[in-house]
Amino acid sequence: MTANLQSALDIGWNDASRQILLHQYGEVRAHSLERAAPLSAEDQCVQSMPDVSPTKWHLAHTTWFFEAMLLRPFLPAYQPFDEHYFYLFNSYYEALGPRHPRPQRGLLTRPSLDDIHEYRAYVDAAMRVLIENCDEKQWHQIFSLGQLGLHHEQQHQELMLTDILHVLWCNPLHPAYQTGDIAHLLIPARASAAPAIKWQQYPGGVILIGHDAQALDEFAFDNETPRHEVLLRPYQLADRLVTCGEFAEFIEDGGYRRPSLWLSDGWAAVQSQGLQSPEYWIEDEGPGASPHWQVFGLHGLQAMVPSAPVTNISFYEAAAYAEWAGARLPTEFEWENSATDMRMRQMAGYAWQWTRSSYDPYPGFRPSAGAVGEYNGKFMVGQLVLRGSSYATPAGHTRPSYRNFFPPNARWQFSGLRLASDLK
Amino acid sequence: MTANLQSALDIGWNDASRQILLHQYGEVRAHSLERAAPLSAEDQCVQSMPDVSPTKWHLAHTTWFFEAMLLRPFLPAYQPFDEHYFYLFNSYYEALGPRHPRPQRGLLTRPSLDDIHEYRAYVDAAMRVLIENCDEKQWHQIFSLGQLGLHHEQQHQELMLTDILHVLWCNPLHPAYQTGDIAHLLIPARASAAPAIKWQQYPGGVILIGHDAQALDEFAFDNETPRHEVLLRPYQLADRLVTCGEFAEFIEDGGYRRPSLWLSDGWAAVQSQGLQSPEYWIEDEGPGASPHWQVFGLHGLQAMVPSAPVTNISFYEAAAYAEWAGARLPTEFEWENSATDMRMRQMAGYAWQWTRSSYDPYPGFRPSAGAVGEYNGKFMVGQLVLRGSSYATPAGHTRPSYRNFFPPNARWQFSGLRLASDLK
Amino acid sequence: MTANLQSALDIGWNDASRQILLHQYGEVRAHSLERAAPLSAEDQCVQSMPDVSPTKWHLAHTTWFFEAMLLRPFLPAYQPFDEHYFYLFNSYYEALGPRHPRPQRGLLTRPSLDDIHEYRAYVDAAMRVLIENCDEKQWHQIFSLGQLGLHHEQQHQELMLTDILHVLWCNPLHPAYQTGDIAHLLIPARASAAPAIKWQQYPGGVILIGHDAQALDEFAFDNETPRHEVLLRPYQLADRLVTCGEFAEFIEDGGYRRPSLWLSDGWAAVQSQGLQSPEYWIEDEGPGASPHWQVFGLHGLQAMVPSAPVTNISFYEAAAYAEWAGARLPTEFEWENSATDMRMRQMAGYAWQWTRSSYDPYPGFRPSAGAVGEYNGKFMVGQLVLRGSSYATPAGHTRPSYRNFFPPNARWQFSGLRLASDLK
Amino acid sequence: MTANLQSALDIGWNDASRQILLHQYGEVRAHSLERAAPLSAEDQCVQSMPDVSPTKWHLAHTTWFFEAMLLRPFLPAYQPFDEHYFYLFNSYYEALGPRHPRPQRGLLTRPSLDDIHEYRAYVDAAMRVLIENCDEKQWHQIFSLGQLGLHHEQQHQELMLTDILHVLWCNPLHPAYQTGDIAHLLIPARASAAPAIKWQQYPGGVILIGHDAQALDEFAFDNETPRHEVLLRPYQLADRLVTCGEFAEFIEDGGYRRPSLWLSDGWAAVQSQGLQSPEYWIEDEGPGASPHWQVFGLHGLQAMVPSAPVTNISFYEAAAYAEWAGARLPTEFEWENSATDMRMRQMAGYAWQWTRSSYDPYPGFRPSAGAVGEYNGKFMVGQLVLRGSSYATPAGHTRPSYRNFFPPNARWQFSGLRLASDLK
Repeated sequence: MTANLQSALDIGWNDASRQILLHQYGEVRAHSLERAAPLSAEDQCVQSMPDVSPTKWHLAHTTWFFEAMLLRPFLPAYQPFDEHYFYLFNSYYEALGPRHPRPQRGLLTRPSLDDIHEYRAYVDAAMRVLIENCDEKQWHQIFSLGQLGLHHEQQHQELMLTDILHVLWCNPLHPAYQTGDIAHLLIPARASAAPAIKWQQYPGGVILIGHDAQALDEFAFDNETPRHEVLLRPYQLADRLVTCGEFAEFIEDGGYRRPSLWLSDGWAAVQSQGLQSPEYWIEDEGPGASPHWQVFGLHGLQAMVPSAPVTNISFYEAAAYAEWAGARLPTEFEWENSATDMRMRQMAGYAWQWTRSSYDPYPGFRPSAGAVGEYNGKFMVGQLVLRGSSYATPAGHTRPSYRNFFPPNARWQFSGLRLASDLK
Repeated sequence: MTANLQSALDIGWNDASRQILLHQYGEVRAHSLERAAPLSAEDQCVQSMPDVSPTKWHLAHTTWFFEAMLLRPFLPAYQPFDEHYFYLFNSYYEALGPRHPRPQRGLLTRPSLDDIHEYRAYVDAAMRVLIENCDEKQWHQIFSLGQLGLHHEQQHQELMLTDILHVLWCNPLHPAYQTGDIAHLLIPARASAAPAIKWQQYPGGVILIGHDAQALDEFAFDNETPRHEVLLRPYQLADRLVTCGEFAEFIEDGGYRRPSLWLSDGWAAVQSQGLQSPEYWIEDEGPGASPHWQVFGLHGLQAMVPSAPVTNISFYEAAAYAEWAGARLPTEFEWENSATDMRMRQMAGYAWQWTRSSYDPYPGFRPSAGAVGEYNGKFMVGQLVLRGSSYATPAGHTRPSYRNFFPPNARWQFSGLRLASDLK
Repeated sequence: MTANLQSALDIGWNDASRQILLHQYGEVRAHSLERAAPLSAEDQCVQSMPDVSPTKWHLAHTTWFFEAMLLRPFLPAYQPFDEHYFYLFNSYYEALGPRHPRPQRGLLTRPSLDDIHEYRAYVDAAMRVLIENCDEKQWHQIFSLGQLGLHHEQQHQELMLTDILHVLWCNPLHPAYQTGDIAHLLIPARASAAPAIKWQQYPGGVILIGHDAQALDEFAFDNETPRHEVLLRPYQLADRLVTCGEFAEFIEDGGYRRPSLWLSDGWAAVQSQGLQSPEYWIEDEGPGASPHWQVFGLHGLQAMVPSAPVTNISFYEAAAYAEWAGARLPTEFEWENSATDMRMRQMAGYAWQWTRSSYDPYPGFRPSAGAVGEYNGKFMVGQLVLRGSSYATPAGHTRPSYRNFFPPNARWQFSGLRLASDLK
Repeated sequence: MTANLQSALDIGWNDASRQILLHQYGEVRAHSLERAAPLSAEDQCVQSMPDVSPTKWHLAHTTWFFEAMLLRPFLPAYQPFDEHYFYLFNSYYEALGPRHPRPQRGLLTRPSLDDIHEYRAYVDAAMRVLIENCDEKQWHQIFSLGQLGLHHEQQHQELMLTDILHVLWCNPLHPAYQTGDIAHLLIPARASAAPAIKWQQYPGGVILIGHDAQALDEFAFDNETPRHEVLLRPYQLADRLVTCGEFAEFIEDGGYRRPSLWLSDGWAAVQSQGLQSPEYWIEDEGPGASPHWQVFGLHGLQAMVPSAPVTNISFYEAAAYAEWAGARLPTEFEWENSATDMRMRQMAGYAWQWTRSSYDPYPGFRPSAGAVGEYNGKFMVGQLVLRGSSYATPAGHTRPSYRNFFPPNARWQFSGLRLASDLK
């Protein structure tokens, strides 16, 4: 292909991709505001623990990302909305200078929520200018960073829900995030009974893991690369997630009182925190012999649904359950290898699934260049990989190669589990 | 005097006192909202440290006080605005059951500020019904508790300002509580130079200390009683408060680096917290030889005013300054003995004045009966007495016998000092 | 009196006082070793909490005191035993430079116990040289500091026992400090029944409080001065201490479950630490209806003796008991005023008695000059005064004017209480 | 092979293996006492942080292991030395009941060191009886557990040195563990200059990892099994460890001040703990331009030896150094694959080598049955694998498949690093 032809094709691609990015940008940015809409300015301001960020902060930080990574470097003569925001809404990018301490995000009563709405509109307008007018030569890089910014915002859209749920949980009134019909947003499984688990078997062997970087049209984070070979032993995987009803059996069978089921750090957490159930479960002291559980969720406090996938458990709880069930957690490689198997159910859209894989770099991994190189790589120690996605994950934000990660004690995420075991 | 005459006088007094209480009630309750007015719902919701309460909580708790102490016990068929509030807005009254933990007051995004405004209006209406219609026999008690409720609310009016100032201080933008002319509310001394201290001398001897309970028309807290004799040695007292300019000299002279000036716990605080100046002082790194201080206050960050009384210092800092100045802090008895001496200046309305008196019960002290007995007495250990009042104290909320108290390390109050020394 | 005569008298006094000090020095120093004798080198090395110091440290620090305050300043050409000790065994004297952090005293496995024994012998020899040979002109000062050093060592003799008791308590084997007959050392009350309390009444009035500095031959700490007048109201005082049996009744009556009995900080301690009894009490789950208590002491774990004075309670517990008993704690002035009343029993030698007096300076108090000025004065905030002495106090180390002091939550001392109340 | 023949062979093996175990038992047990010999009873008693155990505790716990795992289950009519020890010296075996809390091990002044020496002799005698006289049918199991007990004790022999080094480091006198010639015990590299690194290259492919369980005569821990295939990409490995001199260059080049070199948790540790060098390094403020380092070790404080392998660094420091050097840490599989390559130097006997492998279970891993199943498996989260061995590892206690593990922030071990990188 001649350089001219390539150039012409590029121009065609460029024009189309500008339209695509503009459209996606509008959709994603609007969806963040939709998620915040049921919440008052007060709701959006506070922080219930250092891990949690206020809704307002999420709205501002995702906007900061576009300003810091795109507008400041690429839009000539761009005037920042407010110079202080560069400090206030940096999350963890050391390369971009000092930042407001994470545990104090909840003290930012100013800028107000109205200020942040203005900030979003200001940056959105500038982003449209950039996307429509930027130089052809920079377009590849801008398109790529723009995609990153949108996927980044989608991650925060999920965190907006997990974080506000924790805030509302800390309120003794246990208010609901939203009442009424929000089926378009949140669809936890509500079947009256979960079908029996079917175990699907896989022979293992050398398989390919990770995102295929050749496919330009599909976005992936750097931590999903490079694509590489992994050697698997034969294994089988449950075709659905563990349910709340099954987890309640684990509890009734003394699951939280038997150290032999637990990893050492997990047992220490059970004892020091007095754990007796997943986060957000409340024991209803009814007259029956068995405990009746209430579960707090985005709709408020409701009776536990036995067929719904269990969520809001730590890696320790997931591993203890698997031990109790005579099984184990899958590795992230087993999970990915089965991800597109049509027999598998609930792989995405129900609950993030803890794997038995530490969040280590793939062989040959190098972080992206520049400040965005801090996005994933520097967190690759002390965390566990979760695969799939949850009912709070925005539509389209899921891939077989997607690697989510949290510390093993994290319980405020929509995290559950799927069982695996060895085949002889 | 016959019983009939007394009864007739009482009725006359009752009618008049009902009018007085109604009037005071309206004034005081309105003033709380005035103090909150410059703040957004977000500002009024958060809590910057466990000692600090959100503005919204102050507005609700002072209302709760009238509901818990007056409406529930005395107004027949009173329906509480919301049963949950009895738990949420109890501060520390063990006799009234469990309560929301203090460090979590900032997580109450709901009830909203609007809810609290409705709550206030609801209780205000009921209070008016109670005051106008209550039984003659109960009036004495209701009048007394009503007075207590208003003085209680005035105390919280001061805390609303000291607390929000800490919240705003924690914001790196250092926003002002209020801009523009608020001279009617806050009048820190702004004279260009403070006059030299004049030492006023007192012979001591046996004096009377505490509130004179016979004077029915003047309110006092129970901790100001019983009135009793105290034996004083000859002493002298500075006729004005220590200024910011004088405190800056203490700093420049190494005040924060010389352990010999400090009580042991105070020196430990200096070292562990890295103290170098009063709370809210920021060193301006100007070109001059001497440091230039900025002081954060209700009007935001402004140049330090050398003639203004120093505030926001701990007891430890006050005592270290006095040691450095070759003097000492007055006892609370010396202070009270000189309180009405016309030669004294700045006794009230500038800064609370740390005394060298631990907050111990007066001889013969007994707390009030009932839940309000927890108001003062149970805090009588580990705290120091402050006398006078500050520029944030509401008008009329000051008395020679008034005993304010805080732990020795408290720095977020408008607390300063006045020097004293022995006479030979 | 002419200067010559005074000088001659001084010389006579000097010679006699040298002999007295030499004798006292030998007695006191030997007694420290006697107290340590039942303990192994291991026992003497560890530290069970920051408040506790190892026995070996006590032996070294009391020796350091003589070296720092007497030998270094007054003995020409004195060569320190080891220069490092000046740093290692300074307790809290800021004027003498930096020092080893208190919470790390238990990590000093070296110098060994044998080293410390050598250190003591070395300093003892030097002290004898100093006492016997020092210049007449310095004798007054040396005699005074020598006395201070001996009384200082006696204070540490008591701490050696209270501290090692805590160490042994932390050992699940609950080993005894000493078995066999130690009646000469420790005589807790062992009567089969305590006599009923007799209340002794006092009219109050203006009385003299504090040490009479004119009486040269009696030692006192600076915090007992100056002697001054105090005005007392009429009061009565129990003629004996509260017993373990009485305290057990308080427990059975729900004393630790009724917040109305407690100061606010005390109730917070009860809840956060789960307090249910004095320190060192263990509930013996016997078959009877009433709890049977075991009490850990210097002889190990033994059945609670109902007639023995209760000890190892905090100020909060003492105050709660007094409230429960319908009485109050005495002020330190009431206590001192009754100290020499022959009708009073158990004023000294049983348990330190919490008073309702904060540890404030006496009117006109000035600390001693020099480094020893840090001995008492800098601790005069946040603590409460205890009067009397305990069965662990060395013989002779007690005075009516003696002011012991500890923070209100301290429970590892032999601290008890005596009831008082107002007279109308 | 017939059952009879197998039985006859077993008997022959049994007799020989009893002699072997008896001999090994004597050697290993004696070596523990040798390592403790330079220390006083005081040295052996204290605990400088929760991670550190007292020497005396190590001596007792390793003895407890034989009592709990062998004598109690297998020696008929065995009378424990002291029933309390079963509680006192259990480390972390939940299956064996409650245990003394780890952070309080340093408070056990009793039992005394002499008691523990008696305990060891008592158990040693019983172990000899068991080994010589046990039933043939149980011998296989006893032999296996006996081997485990000895390897367990060897692990604690290393910890005895790393732990006492931390204790002595906390002493401001910085005393040496041992002076004089201990070359037989500890041989850190002392060459005047380290040779340049040679990079050895490996093609990768499918390799075998883990202990070969068929080889009965070689001991391994359960975490080294099962042997399994791993797929490696081409890599190269440095033929020697990183030296102190090289690490000093990293420091001088701002290694501890550049966040871009660090994992996020590592950078947080640098900032919160103020890290500036490996543990035990002290900067000598000499006159030169470059810093002169003193390094504290078993021989006390000595000048840093540039050619010696750097030790006492955390995983974070190892990873940051590798990043700075343009390389990475090897995976544990790469390390094991090169372990027997004769070109490699310092693979064992110098410093444990941090790998870039989280301590996860091998595919198909199952813990050993019974209480010893808690030995390794329950720690398989949140830790990193170290390979090789250090100069403090007892002779013979090293294998290519050996997996040591510590949390990423551990700095009190003799842990260093070897560089690796990818081959294209």
